[in-house]
Amino acid sequence: MIIRKKENWFKMLFVWHGSVLPRLLPRLILLFVLSIGVVFFHGKILSFKVPLNPTPLTLFGFVLALFLGFRNNVSYDRFWEARKLWGSLLNCTRSLARQVITLPRTSSEKSESTGFINLLISCTYALKHQLRGTNAENDLKKRLSDTQFSFIHATRYKPTIIIKLMGDWIAHARSKESIDSIQQMRFDENLDKLAEIVGGCERIISTPIPYSYRVLLHRTVYLYCFLLPFGLVDSLQWLTPFIVVFIAYTFVAFEAIADEIEQPFGTESNDLALNEMCQMIEATLMELDGKEIPEIKARKSGTID
Amino acid sequence: MIIRKKENWFKMLFVWHGSVLPRLLPRLILLFVLSIGVVFFHGKILSFKVPLNPTPLTLFGFVLALFLGFRNNVSYDRFWEARKLWGSLLNCTRSLARQVITLPRTSSEKSESTGFINLLISCTYALKHQLRGTNAENDLKKRLSDTQFSFIHATRYKPTIIIKLMGDWIAHARSKESIDSIQQMRFDENLDKLAEIVGGCERIISTPIPYSYRVLLHRTVYLYCFLLPFGLVDSLQWLTPFIVVFIAYTFVAFEAIADEIEQPFGTESNDLALNEMCQMIEATLMELDGKEIPEIKARKSGTID
Amino acid sequence: MIIRKKENWFKMLFVWHGSVLPRLLPRLILLFVLSIGVVFFHGKILSFKVPLNPTPLTLFGFVLALFLGFRNNVSYDRFWEARKLWGSLLNCTRSLARQVITLPRTSSEKSESTGFINLLISCTYALKHQLRGTNAENDLKKRLSDTQFSFIHATRYKPTIIIKLMGDWIAHARSKESIDSIQQMRFDENLDKLAEIVGGCERIISTPIPYSYRVLLHRTVYLYCFLLPFGLVDSLQWLTPFIVVFIAYTFVAFEAIADEIEQPFGTESNDLALNEMCQMIEATLMELDGKEIPEIKARKSGTID
Amino acid sequence: MIIRKKENWFKMLFVWHGSVLPRLLPRLILLFVLSIGVVFFHGKILSFKVPLNPTPLTLFGFVLALFLGFRNNVSYDRFWEARKLWGSLLNCTRSLARQVITLPRTSSEKSESTGFINLLISCTYALKHQLRGTNAENDLKKRLSDTQFSFIHATRYKPTIIIKLMGDWIAHARSKESIDSIQQMRFDENLDKLAEIVGGCERIISTPIPYSYRVLLHRTVYLYCFLLPFGLVDSLQWLTPFIVVFIAYTFVAFEAIADEIEQPFGTESNDLALNEMCQMIEATLMELDGKEIPEIKARKSGTID
Amino acid sequence: MIIRKKENWFKMLFVWHGSVLPRLLPRLILLFVLSIGVVFFHGKILSFKVPLNPTPLTLFGFVLALFLGFRNNVSYDRFWEARKLWGSLLNCTRSLARQVITLPRTSSEKSESTGFINLLISCTYALKHQLRGTNAENDLKKRLSDTQFSFIHATRYKPTIIIKLMGDWIAHARSKESIDSIQQMRFDENLDKLAEIVGGCERIISTPIPYSYRVLLHRTVYLYCFLLPFGLVDSLQWLTPFIVVFIAYTFVAFEAIADEIEQPFGTESNDLALNEMCQMIEATLMELDGKEIPEIKARKSGTID
Repeated sequence: MIIRKKENWFKMLFVWHGSVLPRLLPRLILLFVLSIGVVFFHGKILSFKVPLNPTPLTLFGFVLALFLGFRNNVSYDRFWEARKLWGSLLNCTRSLARQVITLPRTSSEKSESTGFINLLISCTYALKHQLRGTNAENDLKKRLSDTQFSFIHATRYKPTIIIKLMGDWIAHARSKESIDSIQQMRFDENLDKLAEIVGGCERIISTPIPYSYRVLLHRTVYLYCFLLPFGLVDSLQWLTPFIVVFIAYTFVAFEAIADEIEQPFGTESNDLALNEMCQMIEATLMELDGKEIPEIKARKSGTID
Repeated sequence: MIIRKKENWFKMLFVWHGSVLPRLLPRLILLFVLSIGVVFFHGKILSFKVPLNPTPLTLFGFVLALFLGFRNNVSYDRFWEARKLWGSLLNCTRSLARQVITLPRTSSEKSESTGFINLLISCTYALKHQLRGTNAENDLKKRLSDTQFSFIHATRYKPTIIIKLMGDWIAHARSKESIDSIQQMRFDENLDKLAEIVGGCERIISTPIPYSYRVLLHRTVYLYCFLLPFGLVDSLQWLTPFIVVFIAYTFVAFEAIADEIEQPFGTESNDLALNEMCQMIEATLMELDGKEIPEIKARKSGTID
Repeated sequence: MIIRKKENWFKMLFVWHGSVLPRLLPRLILLFVLSIGVVFFHGKILSFKVPLNPTPLTLFGFVLALFLGFRNNVSYDRFWEARKLWGSLLNCTRSLARQVITLPRTSSEKSESTGFINLLISCTYALKHQLRGTNAENDLKKRLSDTQFSFIHATRYKPTIIIKLMGDWIAHARSKESIDSIQQMRFDENLDKLAEIVGGCERIISTPIPYSYRVLLHRTVYLYCFLLPFGLVDSLQWLTPFIVVFIAYTFVAFEAIADEIEQPFGTESNDLALNEMCQMIEATLMELDGKEIPEIKARKSGTID
Repeated sequence: MIIRKKENWFKMLFVWHGSVLPRLLPRLILLFVLSIGVVFFHGKILSFKVPLNPTPLTLFGFVLALFLGFRNNVSYDRFWEARKLWGSLLNCTRSLARQVITLPRTSSEKSESTGFINLLISCTYALKHQLRGTNAENDLKKRLSDTQFSFIHATRYKPTIIIKLMGDWIAHARSKESIDSIQQMRFDENLDKLAEIVGGCERIISTPIPYSYRVLLHRTVYLYCFLLPFGLVDSLQWLTPFIVVFIAYTFVAFEAIADEIEQPFGTESNDLALNEMCQMIEATLMELDGKEIPEIKARKSGTID
Repeated sequence: MIIRKKENWFKMLFVWHGSVLPRLLPRLILLFVLSIGVVFFHGKILSFKVPLNPTPLTLFGFVLALFLGFRNNVSYDRFWEARKLWGSLLNCTRSLARQVITLPRTSSEKSESTGFINLLISCTYALKHQLRGTNAENDLKKRLSDTQFSFIHATRYKPTIIIKLMGDWIAHARSKESIDSIQQMRFDENLDKLAEIVGGCERIISTPIPYSYRVLLHRTVYLYCFLLPFGLVDSLQWLTPFIVVFIAYTFVAFEAIADEIEQPFGTESNDLALNEMCQMIEATLMELDGKEIPEIKARKSGTID
């Protein structure tokens, strides 16, 4: 995720980092060269004049705007839902931490509450690694007991198994009578929420936008851009390449951003900063548990992951 | 559902499998031939020149974009709601499995928890078969006891009846005092959720988008495509068939995709992969229960159902 | 509601039943005749040429598309919310039936559970009759005891009163100690949901879309259609009546469908099939209660109400 | 709120009452006169021809449609959310009334339940008066005991204080052991819902749509209407005033309706019928309590407030 | 937030305060000057005529409208979600205050309930200061005991820690048997809600709209405005600067407002009035606690923060 301070409107026109422009440059240069060719030959291919004018492009504009708008809304909704799920993860782990600290009757549990909170933190990291397809080993090893780690390490759905371990912890507290059934129920309700968050993230990552949509939109955008210079050359003359590239840039960039945030758990520059969120959840849970928390470096402008 | 790795933008333009193009080809060829005819006769029918120009087509574009956008949003919302329901099914069965493992007080229940988890898995498969109109017999027989199977097999609303069997299981545990009323309540709340998921899927499948909409939109799209060559022939000349087919392709394909995902429980290539989801739910529930789970073959590019 | 199998794309162009075309035909014929007149007099009224061209019609198209889109979205949202409420009714009655069967401790209640389930079914029918303004007498009489029927028959808000009777039933079971307070609470929560469903339906039926919107949109659509032939006659000549009627058909039909589904509880052809849903709820509740359920006739293509 | 039977499509074109036309007439007449002037001088101001043509008006149309659409959606969402809140108020008060009748164990509470129901009705009326800024004195005095009334009358947030009184009533019942803690909890959950409804209404009324939006949209609409005759006079000639007024009517009326329903708790003709809803809630609560309820006059066509 | 009475439609056209016009004036003047230059040189740069006409601007209009609409909807959704969260904060603190007053059994708690309510008020102020990045010291010091204050002052996530203190308060009441486990659960559920509100606000403030969108939209809007005079000069002649500035104003202002409300917790003129809301929450909680509340000055037209 790119973090930047508000910028002067004028400077923002020339921002390079954080824009998708660099990635799209080769395609746009290709189009620019094509447009120059079209201008040079006055829109003729061999000696055939391509009789294209702006009218069909306008007709097309309707459906293209429709497509892009739809694609973009869907992608952004996925991005924002993913962010909401991680926001709920923060809320839910905080609530469980508060419960483990305030609900049990005897203070002898105090030392054990840290064990529960470590499970919460591990669950967060395990979810991050599952979503990014990375190896959770390092992050889990230092936060869990050896028994717990070796048990979890062998499983496939790690966050789900960690939630079950929390359930075991609570059942143990219940059998020791340090909480009663009603308090156990409050814990259990929040474990349900945690399971919903984990499942929600899995849903987003396993179900992309239907593939046919992506193909159709992709084709439409690029064919449209390819037709643009032929349609505009008669009226725009030597200006054609500039205007064509400008229009194409906005269309193609819009599609590219939508494509990037459609899978918001990756590490591209507009994706969610799962790493930072994990650290933040860890910090707030440790503070709730009365631990020292490390200084957070001031969030400078730049990309966080 | 079609699963594919991210592709190069250029290759994606020529994807054949997963595009709706093959299915639409006959109609588009028909339109292509018509357009050639229109070009050949210079837009005349017998000796009457059809005095159509792009203006009414533009007027029409508004309402067509409106229609397609509406139809498409409704279809996608249905698709995504269906996916959410199956996501909730995953979450809810996981939560119930966790509860059956951690809530009962005596460990003597342990052997019985597998029976409950088998009910959960059977419910998932029964729902899939109900939604796809297929025969649940094989999937239920191997997961249920004979008594259970013969009882369920005779019923019409199988998933609902299975939920009731879970209720019986819980009532039995309650009467044996292995859980108390409060823990029974936690189970019961999740059974309510399960009932909502089953009912939600039934709602989507039994209530299509109002038929009049479909007729109206269908007519509008096809008549529009039929009028296109007459409106564009004067300005586009020999280019007409190509542009007409290109524009028509986007409109018709958009409608075709919307039509396909409107009923997301089918087995068309953009429908939900209920089969894979059932297997995934089974795997995660078995892992929670401490069972070995089968290796999942790496999800290759291709269609999963 | 119209139920139809998927049709061939070509046949669907000529569907008559289920389309709103028949109802709109007189208006469209009127417009056709007007257009012929306009063509005949070359757009002159007496000897004044009406100097209308397509430009203002295009300007107008923006706002018209906006209006129709808004109207349509609102209507469809109402339709779908109504469907969701009836879907929840199914879920909620199923859950209550499951509870009444599995929660009470002593099996002596068994005979009484049928009484409760009859209240659930009656509530469904009573709601249907309240929403359609029909007489609930027949449907209630055969499902309720005489005391219950005569009590309910005298009331105005029948479904609400039936929910109260369920509350009484539960309170009775509580006082007999066949359920405890916690189980009573689970029932009570679902009664709250039932009250929300009943109130939600009442909200939809008692609050139409603000009247001023309807007037404004109606006027805009019809005046637009009236102006169309004058604006198009110069360019379209003898084709004017056909194109005008075609454009007008889509606009007027779109408004007509929106108007129809705005009040989704009626008996028009796109309204919800409340009757069928009542029967379905009755069947599933009876199956839960272990009763025989009548064969449902295969849902043929056609209109169900 | 305006209540009308479905009207013939033709009659509806000439509806006067309930349309916003009367209120907008002066502005439209002004524009009509201006347009006549523009036609008379052929679009010249002094001897300068205003060189405006429809092209910039088209460009403008995009953003205007965008603005109006946004403004309108926001306003309607506020209207519908307000309606939903009042619908929830109905559901919630009904549920509380059911609870107070069925939950307490001893029938000696019966006489007291009426006191609780009176608090519910008073809360409804107090909310109405708070939202409309009117004096709640009359409506509260006749429904509350003197002690209650004088206590509430001195407070600022009356509905909230009445909810607290309900909490006191419940706490009293708890201390008398007529309900247990679990039943108290059920009441308390619904009091939370009631608090959410009250707070939701306060949120809508205290936070209008950001002011800058309203200014910007207002200016855009009126300047657009002012430019219309200059842009259209060359092509439409003597028809200009009619077309301009027609287009302007739809734009201005759309904005006017949006402005009206943005604050849906007022007494303008499209606002919510809070009065009628209060009476309806009172009737249904009294019926639940076994009281006679007054005949409701048939809802004739007309405005209800 | 700007509060204004409804104004005459005519006066509203000339409102200065509350419009974003002042801030945009320099940019618009720049564009005005540019346009005059374009008119003066008849659209030539040196001796090259810039062959731009309105057609590509129209094509562009589609995507620009799309962009602006998307950006604006996202920003407004954030604004309204933030408002809803603060509305829920009001509801939730009210409910907790009601609970602390009515749930505990012994009246000896009465004096202590004020302590709990002070925690609620402090939590509200702490959240405001966290969101605005200001110093919470003054607002917390006068509402908390010295021990509480010095504890909270050292923490980073103050509102979350305050919620934990509430949990401690409740646990203390539980251990004194002044509430039972069920009542503790009711408190605990509302603490969960409070945690969700705090986390929801943190989510909005920490996750802006993806940066690439902002860059892309910003560039598109300004380049479009820069191209406008070249495209319109041929047809509009001396009118060009006026029309261009007018169109540019609406586009740029729309983007500026969206930019402002995207982060709704700031102190710009369209941001949420957190200060006023804090005071309002304090007043209503004090009234619930039976305290005198200060007169609120009549909300005059003007900006509140």
